[in-house]
Amino acid sequence: MTDRAACEALDRADPLRSTRDLFALPEGVIYLDGNSLGAMPAHVPDRLATVTTEWGRDLITSWNQHGWMELPYRVGDRIARIIGAAPGTVVAADSTSVNLFKVVSAALNLTDRKVALSDSGNFPTDLYVMSAISDLRIADPEEIVEAIDNDVGVVAITHVGYDTGRMHDMTAITAAAHAAGAVVVWDLAHSAGAMALDLGDADFAVGCGYKYLNGGPGAPAFVYIHPDRMESFRNPITGWFAHEAPFDFAQEFVPAEGISRARVGTPHVLSLAALDSALEVFDGVDMATVRAKSLALTELFMELVDDSGLGLRIVTPREPARRGSQVCLSHPDGYAIVQALIERQVIGDFRAPDILRFGFAPLYVSYVDTYDAVAALVEVIRSEEYTDPRYSTRQPVT
Amino acid sequence: MTDRAACEALDRADPLRSTRDLFALPEGVIYLDGNSLGAMPAHVPDRLATVTTEWGRDLITSWNQHGWMELPYRVGDRIARIIGAAPGTVVAADSTSVNLFKVVSAALNLTDRKVALSDSGNFPTDLYVMSAISDLRIADPEEIVEAIDNDVGVVAITHVGYDTGRMHDMTAITAAAHAAGAVVVWDLAHSAGAMALDLGDADFAVGCGYKYLNGGPGAPAFVYIHPDRMESFRNPITGWFAHEAPFDFAQEFVPAEGISRARVGTPHVLSLAALDSALEVFDGVDMATVRAKSLALTELFMELVDDSGLGLRIVTPREPARRGSQVCLSHPDGYAIVQALIERQVIGDFRAPDILRFGFAPLYVSYVDTYDAVAALVEVIRSEEYTDPRYSTRQPVT
Repeated sequence: MTDRAACEALDRADPLRSTRDLFALPEGVIYLDGNSLGAMPAHVPDRLATVTTEWGRDLITSWNQHGWMELPYRVGDRIARIIGAAPGTVVAADSTSVNLFKVVSAALNLTDRKVALSDSGNFPTDLYVMSAISDLRIADPEEIVEAIDNDVGVVAITHVGYDTGRMHDMTAITAAAHAAGAVVVWDLAHSAGAMALDLGDADFAVGCGYKYLNGGPGAPAFVYIHPDRMESFRNPITGWFAHEAPFDFAQEFVPAEGISRARVGTPHVLSLAALDSALEVFDGVDMATVRAKSLALTELFMELVDDSGLGLRIVTPREPARRGSQVCLSHPDGYAIVQALIERQVIGDFRAPDILRFGFAPLYVSYVDTYDAVAALVEVIRSEEYTDPRYSTRQPVT
Repeated sequence: MTDRAACEALDRADPLRSTRDLFALPEGVIYLDGNSLGAMPAHVPDRLATVTTEWGRDLITSWNQHGWMELPYRVGDRIARIIGAAPGTVVAADSTSVNLFKVVSAALNLTDRKVALSDSGNFPTDLYVMSAISDLRIADPEEIVEAIDNDVGVVAITHVGYDTGRMHDMTAITAAAHAAGAVVVWDLAHSAGAMALDLGDADFAVGCGYKYLNGGPGAPAFVYIHPDRMESFRNPITGWFAHEAPFDFAQEFVPAEGISRARVGTPHVLSLAALDSALEVFDGVDMATVRAKSLALTELFMELVDDSGLGLRIVTPREPARRGSQVCLSHPDGYAIVQALIERQVIGDFRAPDILRFGFAPLYVSYVDTYDAVAALVEVIRSEEYTDPRYSTRQPVT
């Protein structure tokens, strides 16, 4: 069994040990909820102060003078590197839900089939968006490939499930979908920033700016378009920033060449600048190293939970190739246990009906954090402190 | 002819003279582009610093602890008061273009007609969005009422035109549309924050957070739904924040009661907090007073331009009831003239092909500003300094 001293040694040897210092994490907090809202890179407030100075002083001229016009592409290219995509194939815009609407609509537009396939482990917003614009079929997460038949026009799956942390085989599902003549959309909400990715032949992807990318609450999301799909991509929301020449104010819509066509309206500059700034923590970081540490942390967490003898059920797949960067436990009193842990400054979250989620952001979570988190979990359960009624009052969190 | 001393007297008597001090306008700048990007209320940076402190320190718990969850409604209700709508009928979300897509789609969904009617003076993004989802007819701005026939399902018009500042008769157009069985959508991008409004029987409206509402570059936009249309409103983008219980993570989409159904994804908290903070400058401000000053400023500007003897063509309607809060001139060298004015710290903007736009935000533009702006315009033209080649190099601005 790994002890705390061993974890300290692992931290000393961690090639990512210095990135934690780039974050403004409060002393004493063990933050295992970066899969919901990433921690704040310490320099983000300075960047926001810079942007408000620009706005206040240089007003409308800031759009050109301070590069605001370029931000969606600049952030897009930063994210492209992190998700293993080519420059010019990613743009930051809107929310993940709006972006999913765009790309699933565009994907359906590429086929004459009406059926979209997803899985029951997908995040509800994805299912909601798809159900309104397609004949949605929902397969079991383990049976996606089997469920792809020749009626399926679009396969849209979240790569790492929000509920269990299971990770799908992107290459296999993309290949199966293409073999059946379907277009593939990946939602990278729980992948981007937590691992190396190989999008391969995937047609489209979307993802979230506020989880492992640490862009701040409700940070702008992103869209990826495979270079071969760029020309045929039809954005259903034809806003002016998707126009080839928005400042010509022409009456007729002509889609821009390239990734601009995935945009819609004026970018949310304050939020986007925060995301741009936040992404600097990835500068020079090798995503394979991130993935290796992520797997080591989640492995350690599961080992310690197993060894605790509490008999907690781990619902996240054990095989490295099948899990993302979180570990989920299932417990009927999950909500109260999470609240009691938060009281002890170990922050995870709860997802109905009975899931305790612990996310491991390799840039700021340490081996010792992981050790201490399990120790706190064991104490909360063994002492039954979670049964205190104050831990049962529900509040929504995102 | 009004002289500068008279303008000074008007400023001293201005009931809005104190709101200017709430803005961080640079010394010496005359800012007549608040119709493109509103000036910064001076306290916004402090609010952003507060939000990043919340994020950094309280992390995910901030959503409940610091009211982030409520922000879209809180901002919506602030805007509701400004646009004369009832509490609970407005929500802040997404961009104006995305919101227009939602409400025009919802409006079309309420009729079995496919035709949407707009006018050639509408902002291009509105026309682009509508053309993709309807059989779009584009009427002359002066002939909208005549163009409403029984084929028209939706009439969607921008209340104040971006190009000329012309203002449509909202009551008359709404009545004509309803008489013909059509649903009405108003885009209030150039109205909200510049005047008192009476939405009356209008079915839906959208508007912009970054013009006269001063919410910052790319601030979140808003959606208004008439109380009688709330129940039948169908958002085409069925994201989780439009669900009646997003945190139940149910697989089936059930739209929320009330204005929540106009939302989609996770709100852009940083941008939204800036907008919330910015809207404080409207606290206690009577919108009828704002409108009265706006009309006085635009009237003064036109009078001084007329009196200059330069023969500049004013394309904004002269009648108060037919103009918004901007004055547009037309000049073949409009672009260069605007650039030369910016060099003199008089900031307006240019819209292709030949429009010089000057916006008058009554909360921070004074009568003396207006006087000095025309004086600068006269000098720039009379001296021909605008013909300097450096003023002809085009750069896009929004």
